[in-house]
Amino acid sequence: MDIHVSPQIERLIRDSLDEDIGAGDLATMATIAADARGKGLFRAKKDGVVAGLVLLDRIFYFIDHRVEVRLLLKDGTAVKSGTVVAEAIGPVRALLLGERTALNFLQRLSGTATLTRKLVDAVKDFSCKVLDTRKTTPGLRTLEKYAVRMGGGTNHRIGLYDAALVKDNHIEATGSIAEAVKAVRRHAPFMAKVEVEAGDLKQVQEALDAGADVIMLDNMNLAQMAEAVTLINKRAGVEASGGITLESIRQVAETGVDFISSGALTHSAPVVDFNMKITMNV
Amino acid sequence: MDIHVSPQIERLIRDSLDEDIGAGDLATMATIAADARGKGLFRAKKDGVVAGLVLLDRIFYFIDHRVEVRLLLKDGTAVKSGTVVAEAIGPVRALLLGERTALNFLQRLSGTATLTRKLVDAVKDFSCKVLDTRKTTPGLRTLEKYAVRMGGGTNHRIGLYDAALVKDNHIEATGSIAEAVKAVRRHAPFMAKVEVEAGDLKQVQEALDAGADVIMLDNMNLAQMAEAVTLINKRAGVEASGGITLESIRQVAETGVDFISSGALTHSAPVVDFNMKITMNV
Amino acid sequence: MDIHVSPQIERLIRDSLDEDIGAGDLATMATIAADARGKGLFRAKKDGVVAGLVLLDRIFYFIDHRVEVRLLLKDGTAVKSGTVVAEAIGPVRALLLGERTALNFLQRLSGTATLTRKLVDAVKDFSCKVLDTRKTTPGLRTLEKYAVRMGGGTNHRIGLYDAALVKDNHIEATGSIAEAVKAVRRHAPFMAKVEVEAGDLKQVQEALDAGADVIMLDNMNLAQMAEAVTLINKRAGVEASGGITLESIRQVAETGVDFISSGALTHSAPVVDFNMKITMNV
Amino acid sequence: MDIHVSPQIERLIRDSLDEDIGAGDLATMATIAADARGKGLFRAKKDGVVAGLVLLDRIFYFIDHRVEVRLLLKDGTAVKSGTVVAEAIGPVRALLLGERTALNFLQRLSGTATLTRKLVDAVKDFSCKVLDTRKTTPGLRTLEKYAVRMGGGTNHRIGLYDAALVKDNHIEATGSIAEAVKAVRRHAPFMAKVEVEAGDLKQVQEALDAGADVIMLDNMNLAQMAEAVTLINKRAGVEASGGITLESIRQVAETGVDFISSGALTHSAPVVDFNMKITMNV
Amino acid sequence: MDIHVSPQIERLIRDSLDEDIGAGDLATMATIAADARGKGLFRAKKDGVVAGLVLLDRIFYFIDHRVEVRLLLKDGTAVKSGTVVAEAIGPVRALLLGERTALNFLQRLSGTATLTRKLVDAVKDFSCKVLDTRKTTPGLRTLEKYAVRMGGGTNHRIGLYDAALVKDNHIEATGSIAEAVKAVRRHAPFMAKVEVEAGDLKQVQEALDAGADVIMLDNMNLAQMAEAVTLINKRAGVEASGGITLESIRQVAETGVDFISSGALTHSAPVVDFNMKITMNV
Amino acid sequence: MDIHVSPQIERLIRDSLDEDIGAGDLATMATIAADARGKGLFRAKKDGVVAGLVLLDRIFYFIDHRVEVRLLLKDGTAVKSGTVVAEAIGPVRALLLGERTALNFLQRLSGTATLTRKLVDAVKDFSCKVLDTRKTTPGLRTLEKYAVRMGGGTNHRIGLYDAALVKDNHIEATGSIAEAVKAVRRHAPFMAKVEVEAGDLKQVQEALDAGADVIMLDNMNLAQMAEAVTLINKRAGVEASGGITLESIRQVAETGVDFISSGALTHSAPVVDFNMKITMNV
Repeated sequence: MDIHVSPQIERLIRDSLDEDIGAGDLATMATIAADARGKGLFRAKKDGVVAGLVLLDRIFYFIDHRVEVRLLLKDGTAVKSGTVVAEAIGPVRALLLGERTALNFLQRLSGTATLTRKLVDAVKDFSCKVLDTRKTTPGLRTLEKYAVRMGGGTNHRIGLYDAALVKDNHIEATGSIAEAVKAVRRHAPFMAKVEVEAGDLKQVQEALDAGADVIMLDNMNLAQMAEAVTLINKRAGVEASGGITLESIRQVAETGVDFISSGALTHSAPVVDFNMKITMNV
Repeated sequence: MDIHVSPQIERLIRDSLDEDIGAGDLATMATIAADARGKGLFRAKKDGVVAGLVLLDRIFYFIDHRVEVRLLLKDGTAVKSGTVVAEAIGPVRALLLGERTALNFLQRLSGTATLTRKLVDAVKDFSCKVLDTRKTTPGLRTLEKYAVRMGGGTNHRIGLYDAALVKDNHIEATGSIAEAVKAVRRHAPFMAKVEVEAGDLKQVQEALDAGADVIMLDNMNLAQMAEAVTLINKRAGVEASGGITLESIRQVAETGVDFISSGALTHSAPVVDFNMKITMNV
Repeated sequence: MDIHVSPQIERLIRDSLDEDIGAGDLATMATIAADARGKGLFRAKKDGVVAGLVLLDRIFYFIDHRVEVRLLLKDGTAVKSGTVVAEAIGPVRALLLGERTALNFLQRLSGTATLTRKLVDAVKDFSCKVLDTRKTTPGLRTLEKYAVRMGGGTNHRIGLYDAALVKDNHIEATGSIAEAVKAVRRHAPFMAKVEVEAGDLKQVQEALDAGADVIMLDNMNLAQMAEAVTLINKRAGVEASGGITLESIRQVAETGVDFISSGALTHSAPVVDFNMKITMNV
Repeated sequence: MDIHVSPQIERLIRDSLDEDIGAGDLATMATIAADARGKGLFRAKKDGVVAGLVLLDRIFYFIDHRVEVRLLLKDGTAVKSGTVVAEAIGPVRALLLGERTALNFLQRLSGTATLTRKLVDAVKDFSCKVLDTRKTTPGLRTLEKYAVRMGGGTNHRIGLYDAALVKDNHIEATGSIAEAVKAVRRHAPFMAKVEVEAGDLKQVQEALDAGADVIMLDNMNLAQMAEAVTLINKRAGVEASGGITLESIRQVAETGVDFISSGALTHSAPVVDFNMKITMNV
Repeated sequence: MDIHVSPQIERLIRDSLDEDIGAGDLATMATIAADARGKGLFRAKKDGVVAGLVLLDRIFYFIDHRVEVRLLLKDGTAVKSGTVVAEAIGPVRALLLGERTALNFLQRLSGTATLTRKLVDAVKDFSCKVLDTRKTTPGLRTLEKYAVRMGGGTNHRIGLYDAALVKDNHIEATGSIAEAVKAVRRHAPFMAKVEVEAGDLKQVQEALDAGADVIMLDNMNLAQMAEAVTLINKRAGVEASGGITLESIRQVAETGVDFISSGALTHSAPVVDFNMKITMNV
Repeated sequence: MDIHVSPQIERLIRDSLDEDIGAGDLATMATIAADARGKGLFRAKKDGVVAGLVLLDRIFYFIDHRVEVRLLLKDGTAVKSGTVVAEAIGPVRALLLGERTALNFLQRLSGTATLTRKLVDAVKDFSCKVLDTRKTTPGLRTLEKYAVRMGGGTNHRIGLYDAALVKDNHIEATGSIAEAVKAVRRHAPFMAKVEVEAGDLKQVQEALDAGADVIMLDNMNLAQMAEAVTLINKRAGVEASGGITLESIRQVAETGVDFISSGALTHSAPVVDFNMKITMNV
């Protein structure tokens, strides 16, 4: 799903430009004429899935309205090292001022999209979906979740407010999973689903009895997961969570779970390197 | 050097909380009483160097003024997996609302501090310093540069505005390195140093002649670097840049360069995992 | 469910104070000494359900940290005209500066809570729930949805982003309800429910076949609603929408629908009047 | 008087869009192609006076620069149910994303304009003017006062800072109306008028003696008002305030007061319903 | 009249701190321990009228909540060079971080207060008042108008929105002063006064006939002013404007005008120098 | 060096417009038709060096996108009284709304540029440079430093964060200049220069021994300065600071110092008056 570039994202872009540029680039302002025009090519320096192109227009627009950005590909496309993904044409100063910020967005979001694609491909023989988590970079939540979608993954909830996840403290406070789910159902928006985190099969059964929409198998081993899947028997969605790696994900999928979530998609994906080569007098 | 929690950082913290919490946690608000109090322990789940503790107080303060945060260690401390680094005491709701945001900051900044420490240790037999770059996460520039310092690294410039780096486009526009440096010196603040990016020894010589304060050896091999160091002969600072890894850094240091910069410190450091265990009725 | 006073709400409070106070009250600053202290009592001038008390502390805190607010009741309480619901003690200037803004929040949110309570009471013999809509006052979405909860109502989705409602344009674009629902399921977060707006029984059947979680009966008459409920037969949630009034809601509930949504809760609830009487030299 | 769309109003528009859209519409983004274009017609569903059209351009511009808004009428025009008041042409996604926010502004501001027009018409045989109050929706002060003007009403002061209203606490603090007015005159901007709130004829006389520019008759009955008008005898403006209704306003005007203020204009005006019908592939 | 430290002023304070401090003071953070405490004394280095003390508490609070500010004088007090006007006690780091910003506010606002006092004293034998203008420093409007009040001056309107000044373009557009005033009266808030700028006696007469509340004598010579005063004869306020200096103001007052406005109060007042001496280990 | 109009500057412009315009100009909105177009000429009313033209486009753009601004000169140009420096063409309302704010920026920044030019000219026979300080107007730091550059001056550091100045408290805390400099070098970014403030020749020697990049001679007399220059002998930069006037600067330059800093450039430069004459129906 495409992203709407919201006011919050626009603010992040402005803040990012501001922390890099301040009142100007000491080298560029002193050496490049205000009216010099040029063209910049954004090129992948590694193989990967590109994400973040959708931001380029806004990044350069905030520096100088006259920069024209052309996307040669769409976010979500797998690219080879060397591929030119976009070009920006306009005042050279603006290109140089926006270069690093643009690349910093591209490299990080493409990193997440690329790792997601790898995990999605690893389980492509199964019907299970790869989910993200709330372990995202502060301030980049919606962008990183967009990158996950561009990699072929599926978003878990956005935050604490749009869907409910019942965990140990909630259960302790109410006395039981059943009571916790009941309390949440009573207060939450009627369109919000309720998931319960279960640490063992006993809790799985309780979550099932409590009518959870989804049950999260928290750090279970493969045998436990398989048993839980059998127990649940399609009466609720099943999410495997905890320590998922590119190596282990296929085995997890084989247990029959519906969803596999991975914090690494957003907190530990290696960046995909891009550069921007600017030709002057174009 | 400690960090001043600036308005920009405070805004990032608020935005981070907002993207996670919105108008409230569906599960927590429905199950935890408003007056329930508890204690949360932040614990490292891997070995590493901790960074970001200095933000905890502000994170929870923005949720609820009544949360009291106690730091058991200082940022920059190497910790073993299992070490409790901080505790937060107050309304359980506030602890649960701030948990994920606090951990997201801690894991990422500690990741950068930890990778920095490894590189710093790898060259501890040399006088050269490990530098960061501008390849940072959008919006987190000053925090990530703080994490580099906590790891024992040294900050390069903050952005384009506080020191000058003369690169290919600037040289092309003015006709020569000499002219570019002259132009920058004429316009930049008198306290700002000027660095020149040199791709080969000819450019190193030109940069030297132009009176650069620092010369960056851009993607040179080890032999070239050594030759450049000899050529420069302490008349300017020497920075090695490009493709530095934990494996290669010691060899680079052996060439005699003064500074080694690494984008990986901020764009590809693996996170250091932390969790927060909340005990209720404390 | 209680509300978390988010940065967005805090910004609204500050903007509200700013539009009323500017750089100060010409009458108060000229006549009341800076150190004069007093007590203000918030009193209902009509019967109703109070909502918005939770904001009072923040409103006065933003004017002067020294004001102490004491709530004598909780939001959601039914009060008689004349009831004192809260008191504020501190500098008289601060009390006078915050008075109107505090009352403006209270009267509006209590208006919504009160109308909600009336509709909820009207259908209390049925299991159906009263829902709000997105027809809210610009900038007050989360507060007005909180007021609905305080009145005993249930929130529909927060906005376009946390749950999906498939409407005519979406159906036209994809060719059918089935295709539209399939597209949404493929792209939306896995925790988001999907509702389909149906204008007649044929569309109800299609929505059912498409696997909608909830089906909205859009402006149907009572007979059609009853038929739709029978057709759906608990295989999806059923929401009645369009032109609901205090007079008609009971009849709608009798059709057996699960949910009845009303835009009037947030766009046309009469305010509940409150005043604030300030005693000086207390 | 037309309104200047100030930064504060622009911020309100952005916040309103943000609270509804977040990172995107789950249904629209999944079903409507990014390049699909269409036309939306804004149509009144009840008779009334339209207000808020002046915001439409900015609302859609903030979503997508390419949307073109055409106003077919001006704010302040009386319309019949069914009248098309404006159209928006551009990407269908942007039309759907902005629809609800645009309607929420229109319905509320038109509600205020419509009620104002009714009160103004009710006293059209008299020279007295209909005023608004500070009982406005938090964050919408200047917009609601604009709607009052569009309905033919006259604005009272904007807030506490641009004109002075001397009330009981101010009088108590200074000892008398005379002293309070004197203190205000000494400190307030020289262009600011001073009004005094009088609860009985004795206070009216004191306010007159104190040289008040305007005297507010606070919750007086009709006989008292007439007597006060006679007493004041054009030596100050006279404002009737308190409990004005569409039924009672004509009688109040007959007492000869110059101004009649009504909080209901902004806190209890029924909305005027509008809808937006989007035709695709236009 | 005291000032309310509004959100706009708080934002200015934060921005001012941010532009000076960024992520920290390179010298202070490296040399002063985080727990070192001290006391700073603010001392006037010239004679003058102090203004801006009211901001000190907020300036330091935004850096570190633990700083305690004690005002030894009130804004508006005339001080001799050497007088200590305030002290701040707390972490030395916070004192050093806030020092320059605090002094920058103090020196400028005291400069305006001091020049105002001189003009006010120069006409103390007359009943006329000294007014400010809209020629203020961008972003500091309300603070500079506060400084004028502290100097004993009177504020003209705050901006374009709270009182009306009819000038040449408005007269040209409507055809006459009479028409312009009528148009303004019809649209402006009922509490707003209307002033007309008159360039000669003919325009003075027209303004008088049009019922202006105040007439501005724009750049007239002394004889013209005296004639205008006679002509107006107390039927409207009279403001002299244009090229007022400390040398000429007494002569202007002798013409009998009610108000004399001076742009220099806010755009050309020499600063009053202050310093802050910090004693450590206190 | 040109300035980049950063988000912080854009925010200042918006705040400046907002404090002057609010929801509209009472006189203009009532008398000038919305579609009336005109042309405004910005004209210098005194001789001086113009600065701030670069902001005009943004100022009017924020009011109305349709205003076209044409600069007839560049910032930094010396102009005679009467010179037209720019014109703005578009809706008359927008011209009138932006007039005062535009002039307020122009007059102040041109004031600083003009005073700077005078000081620069006064020492044009010497190689020394004229520096600004941190004694700037709150919120206008980067703009005022730009004005200094336009006057031919050189910027000192931007704030506390981009270069280090070691002063008395830092020396006291570490025990000596040598220790203070060492501490700063260990923690500061590697591109940041270190300056030491020296009150006498003994401190000059210590600063030299400590390896300071620049030594500030704080309030020394001419003889001391000359001695310090001899002592330093080009081994560090030398800055004279304290009480510099247009009368004294040449003598200071004769001592051989490299830099002379003046707070007056930004805190006490007389404004250069400009006006804007609007012709309607153009």
